[in-house]
Amino acid sequence: MSMEVISQLAIPGTSKLVLFIFDGLGGIDNDGRGSALEAASVPNLDQLATDSVTGFHIPVAVGVTPGSGPAHLSLFGYDPLKYQIGRGVLEALGVNFPLQKGDVPARINFCTLDPEGKISDRRAGRIPSEEGSRVIEKLAGAIQIDGVEIHLRHVKEYRAAMVLRGEGLGGDIADTDPQVTGKEPLAAAPKKKSPANDKTCEVLNEFLRQAREILKDEPKANMLTLRGIDLFEPLPSFQELYHLNPTSIAVYPMYKGVSRLAGMTIQEEGQETTEEQINLLKKVWDDFDYFFIHIKKTDSYGEDGNFEGRISVLEEVDPYIAQIRELGPDVIAVTGDHSTPSPMKSHSWHPVPLLIYSECCRPDTVQQFNERALLQGGLGTIHGTSILPLMLANGKRLTKFGA
Amino acid sequence: MSMEVISQLAIPGTSKLVLFIFDGLGGIDNDGRGSALEAASVPNLDQLATDSVTGFHIPVAVGVTPGSGPAHLSLFGYDPLKYQIGRGVLEALGVNFPLQKGDVPARINFCTLDPEGKISDRRAGRIPSEEGSRVIEKLAGAIQIDGVEIHLRHVKEYRAAMVLRGEGLGGDIADTDPQVTGKEPLAAAPKKKSPANDKTCEVLNEFLRQAREILKDEPKANMLTLRGIDLFEPLPSFQELYHLNPTSIAVYPMYKGVSRLAGMTIQEEGQETTEEQINLLKKVWDDFDYFFIHIKKTDSYGEDGNFEGRISVLEEVDPYIAQIRELGPDVIAVTGDHSTPSPMKSHSWHPVPLLIYSECCRPDTVQQFNERALLQGGLGTIHGTSILPLMLANGKRLTKFGA
Repeated sequence: MSMEVISQLAIPGTSKLVLFIFDGLGGIDNDGRGSALEAASVPNLDQLATDSVTGFHIPVAVGVTPGSGPAHLSLFGYDPLKYQIGRGVLEALGVNFPLQKGDVPARINFCTLDPEGKISDRRAGRIPSEEGSRVIEKLAGAIQIDGVEIHLRHVKEYRAAMVLRGEGLGGDIADTDPQVTGKEPLAAAPKKKSPANDKTCEVLNEFLRQAREILKDEPKANMLTLRGIDLFEPLPSFQELYHLNPTSIAVYPMYKGVSRLAGMTIQEEGQETTEEQINLLKKVWDDFDYFFIHIKKTDSYGEDGNFEGRISVLEEVDPYIAQIRELGPDVIAVTGDHSTPSPMKSHSWHPVPLLIYSECCRPDTVQQFNERALLQGGLGTIHGTSILPLMLANGKRLTKFGA
Repeated sequence: MSMEVISQLAIPGTSKLVLFIFDGLGGIDNDGRGSALEAASVPNLDQLATDSVTGFHIPVAVGVTPGSGPAHLSLFGYDPLKYQIGRGVLEALGVNFPLQKGDVPARINFCTLDPEGKISDRRAGRIPSEEGSRVIEKLAGAIQIDGVEIHLRHVKEYRAAMVLRGEGLGGDIADTDPQVTGKEPLAAAPKKKSPANDKTCEVLNEFLRQAREILKDEPKANMLTLRGIDLFEPLPSFQELYHLNPTSIAVYPMYKGVSRLAGMTIQEEGQETTEEQINLLKKVWDDFDYFFIHIKKTDSYGEDGNFEGRISVLEEVDPYIAQIRELGPDVIAVTGDHSTPSPMKSHSWHPVPLLIYSECCRPDTVQQFNERALLQGGLGTIHGTSILPLMLANGKRLTKFGA
């Protein structure tokens, strides 16, 4: 069902909806011990599964392994094939930069030029993060271009994000990275001729000229290239689409960034640990009606192949599920954005465990929250974009379709 | 998910993928004895199902009974609604004719003309195959048209296939069969005016003129009609789409023909029996990375209403599953192209039993490969076109979608 139709059915209400995400939740067997969910002791999740309708979701499509960006868009109800996020936008989201309509974000790679001005290292010798951070500040303090704001944020090592903000900028601009060493960095050039793209190129080429001057004495990061240049187009927000007033209680910048796309109020501080996240949830409980809570470490340990780590995160977080229930939410959805099986040390395509709880959810016979038990779930395997409509329905936030 | 997106995610690799098709695999109950799969003893398929993720697929759409052409396109990942194969193309595929871009295939029906030149029998008295074959050779030896190659192949009884090959031919031409007796055969006429269609009509009308002369003394097949005239447009191949190097080990011409459409190397000889097919698989194992193996008789016996025949084919083929596993493929998919329940004596719309095996497939709790057991499968019911993406994913041949 398209987002547009769900939006037309959405009605205001007072119910409170909680989306609780264990990043990379789904797994596969680990040497006969089952998945992390199967091996962990998670009595509160099991109880919630008992009271819920359960199953799996497919974030993007059968067989497709999603990145975090598209996987979260799907959880938030946006078709990730329709709303594809460019690399520059993702980089800006990753540092939680508050993008506005018309902004032009890009990814910066520092690089090293030889005395002839040719690229000798496309990653500036993979300079450490302290050095990358210092160089980006040096740049930020010296760059000056009339009529355009230039925002610079360090990301990691040799990588940074830039956002141009100004009137009438275009975003259809080719990368300036020639993709090989031994060549000079390219000038910014439009992929398609237009006054807006020309204006952006003019700004970027002046930026590149100044950057080269400012960085010329750096031993490694004496130049930079721009990639994934893109015009930012905001998504329709939860407010517009569903009369929801959502907030995001995530720890990592990337997830704050993606939830900002959906129009969520970002909780910026005091949520480093799960305990702090839940305390924050309690604190802002009266101020919002949709709460996105994001646990990162299930994914991180999965990517590291750390099966014990995944089990311990699940077991540590489990008691907080009871605390959330005590707040009396009308709807709770617990799932992941994708699977990250620790034997694979990567995201995967496997369907993601899912439960949806409400007073009227029609519980199935499942009494445990794990991959094997959920095979009997009443939801079957649904698309990720169906989770939000189901949450709205269970929260009595959707009216009838047709008379 | 569209084929285009999967194609963009596809990466080269060394994994080996096997698609093992029992034609017409799915069934329904036979007088309380269950389906053929339920009644047969297939320990190797059961073991493979135990180690696999299982479920069903729908080749075209819910409720739709597919022909063999669209059903196989779906198995090969082509949307059968988007890639519709004309009747002429199907007839040429059915005799495994190596169609090239720009060819114009058509189906030939021999017919009988009365002394006034009107059709008295649209199927030439259903002449036996030996006679049909003799007449087509007579025709092939005598027809001569400048500037165009004319390929003629007998199919069965009164049916044959023709392929025109030449520069600048069109394919939007109406049938020459008037559909009733008592009328003269029609001349070839374009459905839409164009120089290319005009050229084809000119060739076809000269062909019809010569054919009438050559066949005039035949007692039954003294003329022919042309149907399903079509311009052949090749499909994008597995090589282009997925970096796969596929081969087809099928027995019947039709299935060789359809796999040729996907760019598969066709094994042409030495595969009459299943044992010979598996020996051939072993022989070419190092030369390819995608292997399509096609067992026809499950379907033939289904169409005949021969329940015992279906059971015996399944039991005869079952041990070869173990031999395939011994080769160490990374991914095995076992399924059918459609269901052919023997009580119905025809293809049907029923979801088709499916298993997908790999080291990381996330097996479900199913331990038998049959319609009843697979209801508990972890795949649920997926679309036929999702099988190839899942095989690629399990073979680590798809990269992440988005960052």
